[in-house]
Amino acid sequence: MTGTDLGANGTGLAPELEAFYRVLQRRRDVRGEFTGEPIGADMLERVLGAAHSAPSVGLSQPWDFVLVRDRETRERFQEHVSGERKVFADTLTGDQAKLFSKIKIEGILESSLGVVVTYDPSRGSPAVLGRHAIADAGLYSVCLAIQNLWLAATAEGLGVGWVSFYREEFLASLLGLPEGIRPVAWLCLGSVSELATTPDLERHGWRRRRPLADAVRHEHW
Amino acid sequence: MTGTDLGANGTGLAPELEAFYRVLQRRRDVRGEFTGEPIGADMLERVLGAAHSAPSVGLSQPWDFVLVRDRETRERFQEHVSGERKVFADTLTGDQAKLFSKIKIEGILESSLGVVVTYDPSRGSPAVLGRHAIADAGLYSVCLAIQNLWLAATAEGLGVGWVSFYREEFLASLLGLPEGIRPVAWLCLGSVSELATTPDLERHGWRRRRPLADAVRHEHW
Repeated sequence: MTGTDLGANGTGLAPELEAFYRVLQRRRDVRGEFTGEPIGADMLERVLGAAHSAPSVGLSQPWDFVLVRDRETRERFQEHVSGERKVFADTLTGDQAKLFSKIKIEGILESSLGVVVTYDPSRGSPAVLGRHAIADAGLYSVCLAIQNLWLAATAEGLGVGWVSFYREEFLASLLGLPEGIRPVAWLCLGSVSELATTPDLERHGWRRRRPLADAVRHEHW
Repeated sequence: MTGTDLGANGTGLAPELEAFYRVLQRRRDVRGEFTGEPIGADMLERVLGAAHSAPSVGLSQPWDFVLVRDRETRERFQEHVSGERKVFADTLTGDQAKLFSKIKIEGILESSLGVVVTYDPSRGSPAVLGRHAIADAGLYSVCLAIQNLWLAATAEGLGVGWVSFYREEFLASLLGLPEGIRPVAWLCLGSVSELATTPDLERHGWRRRRPLADAVRHEHW
Protein backbone atom coordinates (compact mmCIF):
# COMPACT_ATOMS: atom_id res chain seq x y z
CA MET A 1 0.00 0.00 0.00
CA THR A 2 1.29 3.41 -0.90
CA GLY A 3 -1.31 5.80 0.50
CA THR A 4 -0.58 8.56 -1.98
CA ASP A 5 -3.38 10.49 -3.67
CA LEU A 6 -5.55 7.45 -3.99
CA GLY A 7 -8.39 7.76 -6.41
CA ALA A 8 -7.73 11.38 -7.22
CA ASN A 9 -5.19 10.97 -9.96
CA GLY A 10 -7.09 9.91 -13.01
CA THR A 11 -6.28 6.22 -12.83
CA GLY A 12 -9.30 4.90 -14.65
CA LEU A 13 -11.91 5.46 -11.95
CA ALA A 14 -15.42 6.48 -12.94
CA PRO A 15 -15.62 10.31 -13.09
CA GLU A 16 -18.14 10.54 -10.23
CA LEU A 17 -15.96 8.37 -8.00
CA GLU A 18 -12.90 10.40 -8.88
CA ALA A 19 -14.76 13.63 -8.11
CA PHE A 20 -15.83 12.17 -4.77
CA TYR A 21 -12.26 11.32 -3.76
CA ARG A 22 -11.15 14.77 -4.91
CA VAL A 23 -13.44 16.35 -2.30
CA LEU A 24 -11.80 14.23 0.42
CA GLN A 25 -8.32 15.25 -0.74
CA ARG A 26 -9.20 18.95 -1.10
CA ARG A 27 -10.68 19.24 2.40
CA ARG A 28 -8.52 21.36 4.71
CA ASP A 29 -8.74 22.73 8.25
CA VAL A 30 -9.00 26.42 7.40
CA ARG A 31 -7.63 29.29 9.50
CA GLY A 32 -6.25 32.05 7.31
CA GLU A 33 -8.19 31.81 4.07
CA PHE A 34 -11.69 32.95 5.08
CA THR A 35 -13.01 35.92 3.09
CA GLY A 36 -15.96 36.83 5.34
CA GLU A 37 -18.41 36.73 2.43
CA PRO A 38 -21.82 35.46 3.63
CA ILE A 39 -23.04 31.97 2.71
CA GLY A 40 -26.19 31.64 0.62
CA ALA A 41 -29.22 30.23 2.47
CA ASP A 42 -29.67 27.29 0.09
CA MET A 43 -26.02 26.36 0.31
CA LEU A 44 -26.07 26.53 4.09
CA GLU A 45 -29.17 24.36 4.21
CA ARG A 46 -27.51 21.73 2.00
CA VAL A 47 -24.41 21.69 4.20
CA LEU A 48 -26.43 21.37 7.41
CA GLY A 49 -28.66 18.78 5.73
CA ALA A 50 -25.54 16.77 4.94
CA ALA A 51 -24.52 16.83 8.61
CA HIS A 52 -28.03 15.85 9.64
CA SER A 53 -28.03 12.84 7.30
CA ALA A 54 -25.12 11.22 9.17
CA PRO A 55 -25.52 7.82 10.80
CA SER A 56 -26.13 7.74 14.55
CA VAL A 57 -26.21 5.05 17.18
CA GLY A 58 -29.76 3.76 17.54
CA LEU A 59 -30.87 6.50 15.10
CA SER A 60 -30.61 8.84 18.11
CA GLN A 61 -29.44 11.83 16.03
CA PRO A 62 -28.02 13.38 19.21
CA TRP A 63 -26.61 16.49 17.52
CA ASP A 64 -27.80 20.09 17.29
CA PHE A 65 -26.30 23.00 15.38
CA VAL A 66 -26.11 26.46 16.93
CA LEU A 67 -25.40 29.04 14.24
CA VAL A 68 -23.45 31.98 15.66
CA ARG A 69 -23.33 35.13 13.56
CA ASP A 70 -23.42 37.70 16.34
CA ARG A 71 -20.13 39.63 16.37
CA GLU A 72 -20.06 40.12 20.13
CA THR A 73 -20.49 36.40 20.86
CA ARG A 74 -17.72 35.58 18.42
CA GLU A 75 -15.44 38.18 19.97
CA ARG A 76 -16.01 36.78 23.44
CA PHE A 77 -15.24 33.27 22.17
CA GLN A 78 -12.18 34.47 20.33
CA GLU A 79 -10.86 36.13 23.48
CA HIS A 80 -11.32 32.90 25.43
CA VAL A 81 -9.53 30.94 22.70
CA SER A 82 -6.60 33.39 22.81
CA GLY A 83 -6.28 32.69 26.52
CA GLU A 84 -6.27 28.93 25.90
CA ARG A 85 -3.68 29.40 23.19
CA LYS A 86 -1.44 30.95 25.80
CA VAL A 87 -2.10 28.05 28.20
CA PHE A 88 -0.86 25.61 25.55
CA ALA A 89 2.03 27.84 24.44
CA ASP A 90 3.28 27.95 28.04
CA THR A 91 3.74 24.16 28.00
CA LEU A 92 6.13 24.35 25.03
CA THR A 93 9.84 25.05 24.90
CA GLY A 94 12.57 25.48 22.28
CA ASP A 95 11.75 24.68 18.66
CA GLN A 96 8.18 23.66 19.43
CA ALA A 97 7.49 27.00 21.08
CA LYS A 98 9.00 28.85 18.14
CA LEU A 99 7.03 26.82 15.60
CA PHE A 100 3.76 27.22 17.46
CA SER A 101 4.15 30.98 17.64
CA LYS A 102 3.78 31.09 13.83
CA ILE A 103 0.71 28.84 13.62
CA LYS A 104 -2.73 30.39 13.34
CA ILE A 105 -5.26 28.31 15.29
CA GLU A 106 -8.61 29.86 14.39
CA GLY A 107 -10.57 32.09 12.02
CA ILE A 108 -13.46 32.91 14.35
CA LEU A 109 -13.88 36.54 13.30
CA GLU A 110 -12.75 36.14 9.68
CA SER A 111 -15.27 33.42 8.75
CA SER A 112 -18.90 34.29 8.10
CA LEU A 113 -20.32 31.92 10.66
CA GLY A 114 -19.61 29.79 13.71
CA VAL A 115 -21.42 26.45 13.80
CA VAL A 116 -21.37 24.94 17.26
CA VAL A 117 -22.20 21.25 17.14
CA THR A 118 -23.56 19.84 20.38
CA TYR A 119 -24.28 16.42 21.87
CA ASP A 120 -27.42 15.55 23.81
CA PRO A 121 -26.85 12.22 25.62
CA SER A 122 -30.48 12.07 26.73
CA ARG A 123 -31.91 11.93 23.23
CA GLY A 124 -33.60 8.58 22.71
CA SER A 125 -32.65 7.52 26.26
CA PRO A 126 -32.68 5.30 28.16
CA ALA A 127 -32.90 2.54 25.53
CA VAL A 128 -30.45 3.82 22.90
CA LEU A 129 -29.95 0.79 20.66
CA GLY A 130 -26.19 0.13 20.43
CA ARG A 131 -25.06 2.34 23.30
CA HIS A 132 -25.49 0.18 26.43
CA ALA A 133 -21.94 -1.19 26.22
CA ILE A 134 -20.15 1.91 24.87
CA ALA A 135 -21.10 5.13 26.59
CA ASP A 136 -19.20 7.27 24.05
CA ALA A 137 -21.12 5.89 21.05
CA GLY A 138 -23.42 8.94 21.00
CA LEU A 139 -20.45 11.27 20.95
CA TYR A 140 -19.07 9.29 18.00
CA SER A 141 -22.32 9.93 16.09
CA VAL A 142 -21.92 13.68 16.52
CA CYS A 143 -18.45 13.46 14.98
CA LEU A 144 -19.81 11.61 11.95
CA ALA A 145 -22.20 14.51 11.43
CA ILE A 146 -19.30 16.94 11.69
CA GLN A 147 -17.34 15.11 9.00
CA ASN A 148 -20.38 15.10 6.70
CA LEU A 149 -20.68 18.86 7.21
CA TRP A 150 -16.97 19.37 6.57
CA LEU A 151 -16.98 17.39 3.33
CA ALA A 152 -20.20 18.96 2.06
CA ALA A 153 -18.77 22.42 2.71
CA THR A 154 -15.65 21.43 0.78
CA ALA A 155 -17.72 20.11 -2.11
CA GLU A 156 -19.57 23.47 -2.14
CA GLY A 157 -16.27 25.38 -2.31
CA LEU A 158 -16.51 26.60 1.31
CA GLY A 159 -13.95 26.16 4.05
CA VAL A 160 -14.27 24.76 7.58
CA GLY A 161 -11.94 25.27 10.53
CA TRP A 162 -12.42 23.25 13.71
CA VAL A 163 -11.46 25.30 16.77
CA SER A 164 -10.58 23.20 19.81
CA PHE A 165 -8.74 25.65 22.06
CA TYR A 166 -11.60 26.15 24.50
CA ARG A 167 -13.07 24.84 27.71
CA GLU A 168 -16.41 23.15 27.26
CA GLU A 169 -17.90 24.93 30.29
CA PHE A 170 -17.04 28.32 28.82
CA LEU A 171 -18.71 27.61 25.50
CA ALA A 172 -21.72 25.94 27.13
CA SER A 173 -22.25 29.03 29.25
CA LEU A 174 -21.64 31.45 26.34
CA LEU A 175 -24.43 29.83 24.32
CA GLY A 176 -26.74 29.03 27.22
CA LEU A 177 -26.64 25.27 26.67
CA PRO A 178 -28.91 23.41 29.09
CA GLU A 179 -27.32 21.16 31.73
CA GLY A 180 -26.10 17.96 30.10
CA ILE A 181 -25.78 19.29 26.55
CA ARG A 182 -22.13 19.15 25.58
CA PRO A 183 -20.45 21.29 22.91
CA VAL A 184 -18.33 19.05 20.66
CA ALA A 185 -16.97 21.56 18.16
CA TRP A 186 -16.88 25.19 17.14
CA LEU A 187 -16.64 25.10 13.37
CA CYS A 188 -15.71 28.25 11.48
CA LEU A 189 -17.61 28.02 8.21
CA GLY A 190 -17.34 30.36 5.28
CA SER A 191 -16.16 31.36 1.86
CA VAL A 192 -12.45 31.02 1.28
CA SER A 193 -9.94 32.56 -1.11
CA GLU A 194 -8.50 29.06 -1.65
CA LEU A 195 -7.95 25.74 0.09
CA ALA A 196 -4.28 25.07 0.78
CA THR A 197 -2.84 21.97 -0.86
CA THR A 198 -0.90 21.01 2.29
CA PRO A 199 -2.23 20.98 5.87
CA ASP A 200 -1.02 24.05 7.81
CA LEU A 201 0.64 21.94 10.49
CA GLU A 202 2.60 19.99 7.90
CA ARG A 203 3.61 23.16 6.04
CA HIS A 204 4.89 24.68 9.29
CA GLY A 205 6.81 21.48 10.11
CA TRP A 206 4.75 20.77 13.24
CA ARG A 207 4.01 17.15 12.24
CA ARG A 208 4.14 15.03 9.10
CA ARG A 209 1.56 12.73 7.59
CA ARG A 210 2.05 9.02 8.34
CA PRO A 211 2.18 6.59 5.43
CA LEU A 212 -1.06 4.60 5.18
CA ALA A 213 0.88 1.32 5.37
CA ASP A 214 1.95 2.19 8.93
CA ALA A 215 -1.68 2.44 9.99
CA VAL A 216 -2.89 -0.90 8.59
CA ARG A 217 -2.53 -4.18 10.49
CA HIS A 218 -3.72 -7.68 9.67
CA GLU A 219 -5.77 -10.00 11.89
CA HIS A 220 -4.40 -8.54 15.14
CA TRP A 221 -2.21 -5.76 16.43
CA MET B 1 -35.48 24.76 6.32
CA THR B 2 -37.06 21.54 5.17
CA GLY B 3 -34.28 18.99 5.47
CA THR B 4 -35.63 16.72 2.76
CA ASP B 5 -33.32 15.17 0.16
CA LEU B 6 -31.19 18.26 -0.08
CA GLY B 7 -28.95 18.43 -3.08
CA ALA B 8 -29.88 15.03 -4.38
CA ASN B 9 -32.96 15.90 -6.33
CA GLY B 10 -31.72 17.50 -9.50
CA THR B 11 -32.43 21.08 -8.56
CA GLY B 12 -29.83 22.72 -10.72
CA LEU B 13 -26.71 21.75 -8.79
CA ALA B 14 -23.51 20.99 -10.70
CA PRO B 15 -23.44 17.26 -11.57
CA GLU B 16 -20.35 16.57 -9.42
CA LEU B 17 -21.95 18.25 -6.42
CA GLU B 18 -25.16 16.37 -6.94
CA ALA B 19 -23.24 13.09 -7.20
CA PHE B 20 -21.42 13.94 -3.98
CA TYR B 21 -24.68 14.52 -2.07
CA ARG B 22 -26.08 11.32 -3.55
CA VAL B 23 -23.31 9.34 -1.84
CA LEU B 24 -24.26 10.89 1.52
CA GLN B 25 -27.93 10.04 0.98
CA ARG B 26 -27.24 6.48 -0.22
CA ARG B 27 -25.02 5.58 2.76
CA ARG B 28 -26.67 3.06 5.07
CA ASP B 29 -25.70 1.08 8.18
CA VAL B 30 -25.72 -2.39 6.64
CA ARG B 31 -26.64 -5.60 8.43
CA GLY B 32 -28.52 -7.96 6.15
CA GLU B 33 -27.33 -7.11 2.65
CA PHE B 34 -23.73 -8.34 2.64
CA THR B 35 -22.94 -10.88 -0.09
CA GLY B 36 -19.58 -12.11 1.24
CA GLU B 37 -17.83 -11.42 -2.06
CA PRO B 38 -14.20 -10.35 -1.43
CA ILE B 39 -13.15 -6.72 -1.93
CA GLY B 40 -10.53 -5.96 -4.60
CA ALA B 41 -7.14 -4.84 -3.23
CA ASP B 42 -7.17 -1.51 -5.08
CA MET B 43 -10.66 -0.69 -3.90
CA LEU B 44 -9.79 -1.56 -0.31
CA GLU B 45 -6.70 0.63 -0.49
CA ARG B 46 -8.75 3.57 -1.78
CA VAL B 47 -11.28 3.15 1.03
CA LEU B 48 -8.59 2.92 3.73
CA GLY B 49 -6.74 5.81 2.08
CA ALA B 50 -9.92 7.88 2.37
CA ALA B 51 -10.11 7.14 6.09
CA HIS B 52 -6.45 7.99 6.50
CA SER B 53 -6.89 11.37 4.78
CA ALA B 54 -9.28 12.58 7.52
CA PRO B 55 -8.46 15.65 9.60
CA SER B 56 -7.04 15.05 13.07
CA VAL B 57 -6.32 17.22 16.08
CA GLY B 58 -2.75 18.50 15.86
CA LEU B 59 -2.29 16.26 12.79
CA SER B 60 -1.92 13.42 15.30
CA GLN B 61 -3.57 10.82 13.03
CA PRO B 62 -4.28 8.70 16.10
CA TRP B 63 -6.10 5.91 14.24
CA ASP B 64 -5.07 2.44 13.11
CA PHE B 65 -7.01 -0.11 11.09
CA VAL B 66 -6.91 -3.79 12.00
CA LEU B 67 -8.26 -5.87 9.11
CA VAL B 68 -9.89 -9.05 10.37
CA ARG B 69 -10.55 -11.78 7.83
CA ASP B 70 -9.90 -14.82 10.02
CA ARG B 71 -13.12 -16.76 10.43
CA GLU B 72 -12.38 -17.94 13.96
CA THR B 73 -11.74 -14.39 15.22
CA ARG B 74 -14.96 -13.20 13.64
CA GLU B 75 -16.88 -16.10 15.16
CA ARG B 76 -15.53 -15.32 18.62
CA PHE B 77 -16.50 -11.67 18.20
CA GLN B 78 -19.92 -12.58 16.89
CA GLU B 79 -20.54 -14.81 19.90
CA HIS B 80 -19.60 -11.96 22.25
CA VAL B 81 -21.90 -9.57 20.37
CA SER B 82 -24.79 -12.06 20.68
CA GLY B 83 -24.27 -12.04 24.43
CA GLU B 84 -24.35 -8.23 24.52
CA ARG B 85 -27.48 -8.26 22.40
CA LYS B 86 -29.12 -10.30 25.13
CA VAL B 87 -27.88 -7.86 27.80
CA PHE B 88 -29.61 -5.01 25.96
CA ALA B 89 -32.73 -7.05 25.14
CA ASP B 90 -33.15 -7.84 28.84
CA THR B 91 -33.53 -4.10 29.59
CA LEU B 92 -36.52 -3.81 27.24
CA THR B 93 -40.19 -4.53 27.81
CA GLY B 94 -43.44 -4.51 25.81
CA ASP B 95 -43.42 -3.08 22.29
CA GLN B 96 -39.73 -2.16 22.43
CA ALA B 97 -38.75 -5.73 23.29
CA LYS B 98 -40.93 -7.07 20.47
CA LEU B 99 -39.53 -4.57 17.95
CA PHE B 100 -35.94 -5.22 18.95
CA SER B 101 -36.35 -8.97 18.53
CA LYS B 102 -36.83 -8.37 14.79
CA ILE B 103 -33.86 -6.07 14.30
CA LYS B 104 -30.57 -7.50 12.99
CA ILE B 105 -27.65 -5.75 14.68
CA GLU B 106 -24.61 -7.03 12.80
CA GLY B 107 -23.27 -8.76 9.69
CA ILE B 108 -19.95 -9.94 11.15
CA LEU B 109 -19.85 -13.30 9.41
CA GLU B 110 -21.73 -12.29 6.25
CA SER B 111 -19.44 -9.40 5.30
CA SER B 112 -16.05 -10.06 3.72
CA LEU B 113 -14.05 -8.16 6.28
CA GLY B 114 -14.02 -6.64 9.74
CA VAL B 115 -12.19 -3.32 10.03
CA VAL B 116 -11.44 -2.45 13.63
CA VAL B 117 -10.58 1.21 13.99
CA THR B 118 -8.51 2.04 17.05
CA TYR B 119 -7.40 5.14 18.94
CA ASP B 120 -3.91 5.73 20.26
CA PRO B 121 -4.00 8.65 22.73
CA SER B 122 -0.20 8.67 23.01
CA ARG B 123 0.44 9.49 19.36
CA GLY B 124 2.04 12.92 19.11
CA SER B 125 1.91 13.30 22.91
CA PRO B 126 2.39 15.15 25.12
CA ALA B 127 2.10 18.34 23.05
CA VAL B 128 -0.90 17.50 20.84
CA LEU B 129 -1.83 20.87 19.36
CA GLY B 130 -5.52 21.48 20.07
CA ARG B 131 -6.04 18.76 22.69
CA HIS B 132 -4.90 20.33 25.95
CA ALA B 133 -8.37 21.65 26.79
CA ILE B 134 -10.48 18.82 25.33
CA ALA B 135 -9.24 15.34 26.19
CA ASP B 136 -11.70 13.67 23.80
CA ALA B 137 -10.46 15.58 20.74
CA GLY B 138 -8.28 12.65 19.65
CA LEU B 139 -11.24 10.31 19.83
CA TYR B 140 -13.19 12.76 17.67
CA SER B 141 -10.46 12.53 15.00
CA VAL B 142 -10.85 8.76 14.83
CA CYS B 143 -14.57 9.19 14.16
CA LEU B 144 -13.87 11.58 11.29
CA ALA B 145 -11.70 8.87 9.73
CA ILE B 146 -14.52 6.36 10.18
CA GLN B 147 -16.99 8.61 8.36
CA ASN B 148 -14.53 9.10 5.49
CA LEU B 149 -14.21 5.31 5.24
CA TRP B 150 -17.98 4.86 5.35
CA LEU B 151 -18.63 7.38 2.60
CA ALA B 152 -15.81 6.13 0.38
CA ALA B 153 -17.13 2.58 0.71
CA THR B 154 -20.58 3.84 -0.27
CA ALA B 155 -19.16 5.70 -3.28
CA GLU B 156 -17.44 2.44 -4.32
CA GLY B 157 -20.73 0.53 -4.08
CA LEU B 158 -19.73 -1.32 -0.90
CA GLY B 159 -21.60 -1.43 2.38
CA VAL B 160 -20.49 -0.69 5.95
CA GLY B 161 -22.13 -1.77 9.19
CA TRP B 162 -20.90 -0.35 12.51
CA VAL B 163 -21.21 -2.93 15.28
CA SER B 164 -21.37 -1.42 18.75
CA PHE B 165 -22.72 -4.27 20.89
CA TYR B 166 -19.39 -5.15 22.49
CA ARG B 167 -17.22 -4.39 25.50
CA GLU B 168 -14.03 -2.58 24.63
CA GLU B 169 -11.96 -4.85 26.90
CA PHE B 170 -13.18 -7.95 25.07
CA LEU B 171 -12.27 -6.61 21.63
CA ALA B 172 -8.94 -5.20 22.83
CA SER B 173 -8.01 -8.61 24.19
CA LEU B 174 -9.31 -10.50 21.12
CA LEU B 175 -6.99 -8.47 18.85
CA GLY B 176 -4.08 -8.16 21.24
CA LEU B 177 -4.24 -4.37 21.44
CA PRO B 178 -1.44 -2.92 23.59
CA GLU B 179 -2.34 -1.22 26.88
CA GLY B 180 -3.83 2.21 26.15
CA ILE B 181 -4.96 1.53 22.58
CA ARG B 182 -8.74 1.77 22.48
CA PRO B 183 -11.03 0.10 19.92
CA VAL B 184 -13.53 2.67 18.63
CA ALA B 185 -15.47 0.63 16.07
CA TRP B 186 -15.85 -2.76 14.47
CA LEU B 187 -16.92 -2.00 10.91
CA CYS B 188 -18.30 -4.80 8.75
CA LEU B 189 -17.16 -3.94 5.23
CA GLY B 190 -18.11 -5.71 2.06
CA SER B 191 -20.04 -6.11 -1.14
CA VAL B 192 -23.78 -5.76 -0.82
CA SER B 193 -26.77 -6.88 -2.83
CA GLU B 194 -28.22 -3.37 -2.40
CA LEU B 195 -28.32 -0.43 -0.01
CA ALA B 196 -31.73 0.03 1.59
CA THR B 197 -33.43 3.36 0.87
CA THR B 198 -34.61 3.70 4.49
CA PRO B 199 -32.51 3.11 7.63
CA ASP B 200 -33.33 -0.28 9.21
CA LEU B 201 -34.34 1.26 12.53
CA GLU B 202 -36.77 3.61 10.81
CA ARG B 203 -38.23 0.81 8.69
CA HIS B 204 -38.80 -1.29 11.81
CA GLY B 205 -40.41 1.67 13.59
CA TRP B 206 -37.72 1.86 16.28
CA ARG B 207 -37.14 5.60 15.80
CA ARG B 208 -37.90 8.26 13.20
CA ARG B 209 -35.67 10.84 11.61
CA ARG B 210 -35.92 14.33 13.09
CA PRO B 211 -36.63 17.25 10.78
CA LEU B 212 -33.50 19.32 10.17
CA ALA B 213 -35.28 22.46 11.38
CA ASP B 214 -35.56 20.93 14.87
CA ALA B 215 -31.79 20.58 15.04
CA VAL B 216 -30.86 24.14 14.03
CA ARG B 217 -30.71 27.02 16.51
CA HIS B 218 -29.67 30.63 16.09
CA GLU B 219 -27.12 32.53 18.18
CA HIS B 220 -27.79 30.49 21.34
CA TRP B 221 -29.71 27.47 22.58
